Amino acid sequence: MDIRERVEALRKVMAEKGIDIYIVPTADYHQSEYVGEHFKARKFITGFTGSAGTAVITAEEAGLWTDARYFIQAAGELEGSSILLRKMGEPGVPKIEEYIKEVLPEGGAIGFDGRTVSVSDGQRYEKLAEEKHGKLLYGADLIDAIWEERPGISEKPVFALGLEYTGKTVADKLAAIREEMEKCGADVHVLTTLDDICWMLNIRGDDVDYFPLVLSYALIMKESVKLYIDENKLDDTIKASLAAEGVELQPYNDLYEDIKRLKDGTALLLDESKLNYELYKNIPEKVKKISKPNPAILMKAIKNDVEISNIRKAQIKDSIAHIRFMKWLKENVGKICITEISASDKLDEFRKELGNFLRPSFDPISAFGEHAAMAHYSASAETDAKLKEGSFLLTDTGAGFYEGSTDITRTYALGEVPQNLKDDFTLVAISNLSLANVRFLKGANGMTVDYAARKPFWDRGKDFNHGTGHGVGYLLNIHEGPAELRWRYRGGLVQELKKGMVLTDEPGIYIEGSHGIRLENELLICEGEKNEYGQFMYFEPLTLIPFDLDAINPQMMKEEEKTLLNEYHKKVFETLTPYLTEDEKEWLKEYTREI
Amino acid sequence: MDIRERVEALRKVMAEKGIDIYIVPTADYHQSEYVGEHFKARKFITGFTGSAGTAVITAEEAGLWTDARYFIQAAGELEGSSILLRKMGEPGVPKIEEYIKEVLPEGGAIGFDGRTVSVSDGQRYEKLAEEKHGKLLYGADLIDAIWEERPGISEKPVFALGLEYTGKTVADKLAAIREEMEKCGADVHVLTTLDDICWMLNIRGDDVDYFPLVLSYALIMKESVKLYIDENKLDDTIKASLAAEGVELQPYNDLYEDIKRLKDGTALLLDESKLNYELYKNIPEKVKKISKPNPAILMKAIKNDVEISNIRKAQIKDSIAHIRFMKWLKENVGKICITEISASDKLDEFRKELGNFLRPSFDPISAFGEHAAMAHYSASAETDAKLKEGSFLLTDTGAGFYEGSTDITRTYALGEVPQNLKDDFTLVAISNLSLANVRFLKGANGMTVDYAARKPFWDRGKDFNHGTGHGVGYLLNIHEGPAELRWRYRGGLVQELKKGMVLTDEPGIYIEGSHGIRLENELLICEGEKNEYGQFMYFEPLTLIPFDLDAINPQMMKEEEKTLLNEYHKKVFETLTPYLTEDEKEWLKEYTREI
Repeated sequence: MDIRERVEALRKVMAEKGIDIYIVPTADYHQSEYVGEHFKARKFITGFTGSAGTAVITAEEAGLWTDARYFIQAAGELEGSSILLRKMGEPGVPKIEEYIKEVLPEGGAIGFDGRTVSVSDGQRYEKLAEEKHGKLLYGADLIDAIWEERPGISEKPVFALGLEYTGKTVADKLAAIREEMEKCGADVHVLTTLDDICWMLNIRGDDVDYFPLVLSYALIMKESVKLYIDENKLDDTIKASLAAEGVELQPYNDLYEDIKRLKDGTALLLDESKLNYELYKNIPEKVKKISKPNPAILMKAIKNDVEISNIRKAQIKDSIAHIRFMKWLKENVGKICITEISASDKLDEFRKELGNFLRPSFDPISAFGEHAAMAHYSASAETDAKLKEGSFLLTDTGAGFYEGSTDITRTYALGEVPQNLKDDFTLVAISNLSLANVRFLKGANGMTVDYAARKPFWDRGKDFNHGTGHGVGYLLNIHEGPAELRWRYRGGLVQELKKGMVLTDEPGIYIEGSHGIRLENELLICEGEKNEYGQFMYFEPLTLIPFDLDAINPQMMKEEEKTLLNEYHKKVFETLTPYLTEDEKEWLKEYTREI
Repeated sequence: MDIRERVEALRKVMAEKGIDIYIVPTADYHQSEYVGEHFKARKFITGFTGSAGTAVITAEEAGLWTDARYFIQAAGELEGSSILLRKMGEPGVPKIEEYIKEVLPEGGAIGFDGRTVSVSDGQRYEKLAEEKHGKLLYGADLIDAIWEERPGISEKPVFALGLEYTGKTVADKLAAIREEMEKCGADVHVLTTLDDICWMLNIRGDDVDYFPLVLSYALIMKESVKLYIDENKLDDTIKASLAAEGVELQPYNDLYEDIKRLKDGTALLLDESKLNYELYKNIPEKVKKISKPNPAILMKAIKNDVEISNIRKAQIKDSIAHIRFMKWLKENVGKICITEISASDKLDEFRKELGNFLRPSFDPISAFGEHAAMAHYSASAETDAKLKEGSFLLTDTGAGFYEGSTDITRTYALGEVPQNLKDDFTLVAISNLSLANVRFLKGANGMTVDYAARKPFWDRGKDFNHGTGHGVGYLLNIHEGPAELRWRYRGGLVQELKKGMVLTDEPGIYIEGSHGIRLENELLICEGEKNEYGQFMYFEPLTLIPFDLDAINPQMMKEEEKTLLNEYHKKVFETLTPYLTEDEKEWLKEYTREI
């Protein structure tokens, strides 16, 4: 079946069920950032392969809503599919709700698979249906009825992550969560986010792309835990160790019925922003909902000493791989054929050589020249550019080592690059270093310090249109809350920066049709001096890879900015030389020289 | 009656009414920052004259809870009164709620005047009473029963502020508020904050200390307004002009009964954080509450062009007064007797000479030497220090001109001051100038840019323990929301910085037993360049008074910091010389010279 046929088949099922508008988001049942093959329903029905987008199908029209990152890619992939590209944020393009409001007939029905829709989106659709005195059919996965060769739900085995990596036993983690439940008077806590569950139970798996997560849900009671999971994924050792912690296994989908059976008056701790709509609707009315962020979110964001010591190792490994890659790239560009994809593969080769490597920690970005101006470019066989001298290669990639996940961006000058490229590179380096070197008082949050990264841009009338940094999970999600570095308030509560959190520092500049630059290090939040003014905090750079001196314009830098760069390069050289060959050492000495 | 007798008299009334714990906060019925004489019940019952504090009286004990600003003053004033000083925030000192929890007997009663207590405090007391299966008696002003010579509620006349000062008619303001009511579906809006009412109706009065406000409440309907006010304060002209806008007058206290008569299903827009507890409790259950910040808050914070042009004039006047004062001070210190109070009076004399001066815009701070280390020092006859050479005079004062209210702090070196004082002064100047010169993108808030003021402190392991800046009302409250400059998140929503807002910029340093320094300018938020990255914004300094060069250590300053100081001084000189005598000009030239 081609896309047109798929859409026609869906319309037939819609007609049978009396559904006027059917919505297919990009999601599994856990609001995951990446999803497994079984859940790529939106890709199946539209042909669009990007990571973000929602399909909305009516009897007459089929549309795909996606954001600016994907306009070019989506236009290409949707060609000839009869699916309209709805460019979100563009003038004249209705929002999904506006569109539904317009096309839903009086008394009509909106349908979707309620397990793949967030509570807030579901409530919006609910309101739209009410306004038209219509119906909401959220219990129907219509795509399943027409997707003949649909991959099954992942059955990949689960593995235990040892205490030498996690640093904290399941018993300790459960005790900490139960303490938070106690504080807010909760009897039961429902947990549906895969990274929280894997963190809590010290398990990992292979059920979604890139992140080693396990499809599961959990109900945490005062004395026991119900883990909803495909039991076949677990070997006897893991089963025994989970049982020892009071964890009972239940079939993956049974939570939907079990939650209906919670007793009247049960106080249920839940995180509305993480639950799916169907599960939320199944909670009995007489259950007392305590809506709060999952306690696990903050706990896992604050890395313990064992995790920190491992993360340092992972970062040193990845820094070594990057230095080898950088040397190889500088020595071979223009001599042998290197493309965006082959460059990225080469970097992963260097990583693998260092051992304990599971897989890339996210979809790698390897972008040459003007491709790098697209902040989320992903090279495909069609676009894979050959590297040439005179521009930049931007690599934003990461490794999943047992010692932790990395997320690192470097931009390399290939041969001699024009002055304006060097000036832009220098600006990004100044921004990165300025933020990495802030001192701040305990109590500060990401908005408090983000100005350090923005000032070099704003003073020059420039900016970069994305956040400056995010938390990084330990073999979990690569974008991990609750802390972040950004200047704009986005509603809700603002998270304090806490000792032990790991954040990225990734300013950039993007010049359409020309080039893109981003420099991304991971930083560890540390406590410094404590005096009469309070507890001071600082960032320790974990990532130790040179900022390419071939692209630095020292004339643009203030003395103190040069000092920051020189100090960083000194740390790179001193930390890494023990791991390098004589030849590599010599090379690194040159690329970390004082300016 | 002395304080002991007053407390005994109160206990008698408490016993009659069956009240175990009686609470007396520092407040009028409008949660005002300053209150009129009638409302100084907490001062009456404790003798403590500071602006913040709560008295809690039981049959056995009487305590005054106040914060660190007032520990010394309160200790002095409470001596011999039998009232215990409860130092808030000190180890071992219970919070008021903790204290009540401890001493309230099972089935006991808590009493207070519900009109003087905020909704959130009232709800906390309610919960404490419930926990003990007791009662809450919030309808009783027991102080009134024992305060024989209690001043009446202010009867001062109201005056209209002309369009040449307000820049916007009452009709326009009401239309704007009704538009916001419409947006959230409100039928009625209850307004109890004096500055919002005065702003909305372009009236001013003299009912609280310092701020020219009018005791009143308002109910805003779609076609009319009910203004609850003592009618005798209004002359016929004002009555007529209010009537023309559909404003009906009602006796001041009638709102409490009127609000009970709102029809079932009425949608009432209210700001819970601004209402008093009694009024809130009087709202019928079947009224639909729409809890939102008063729309007037943001509207009045964004100054219109007429207000801005006036504020510039007020700031120039106050800058001239300050320059004359600074010259007089420098030329006379050590020669004639000058005290903290006489210095502050002298500054007001210079202000008055410039015309259109109503009164000081808040309780002036004039602090010499170690007194300035207390951030909220207020000189009294007993403490009034004589100025001597070798230290600083800090003046944090303001004028209420018809052209707007000012809030300005300067710190002056008297004679030659020690090097460490100069270094501290220079640090504060660097901080002030760094913040004043930030460029930022539209969408930023006070937390986004505050780091500019903190960086010079934090990089040196120092800090100042107060916000960096607040909004300033136009002949209204001197501390005006919703915007502020601070680094710490304090819960709730964060206000964006908008064009036309006026904020203070007031870093400081406080060395106990030695000296205190604060430099405070008012800044206007302006729009600058708009380009592909967005709309850039900047601050324009409105206050134009030299930072005392006798206390600047140029060696501590980076070149760009010197440039900021020199540019500011150049602007001071160029803007003000047209208003000065030849003698003053010569003097100013020296004190704004390039360094």
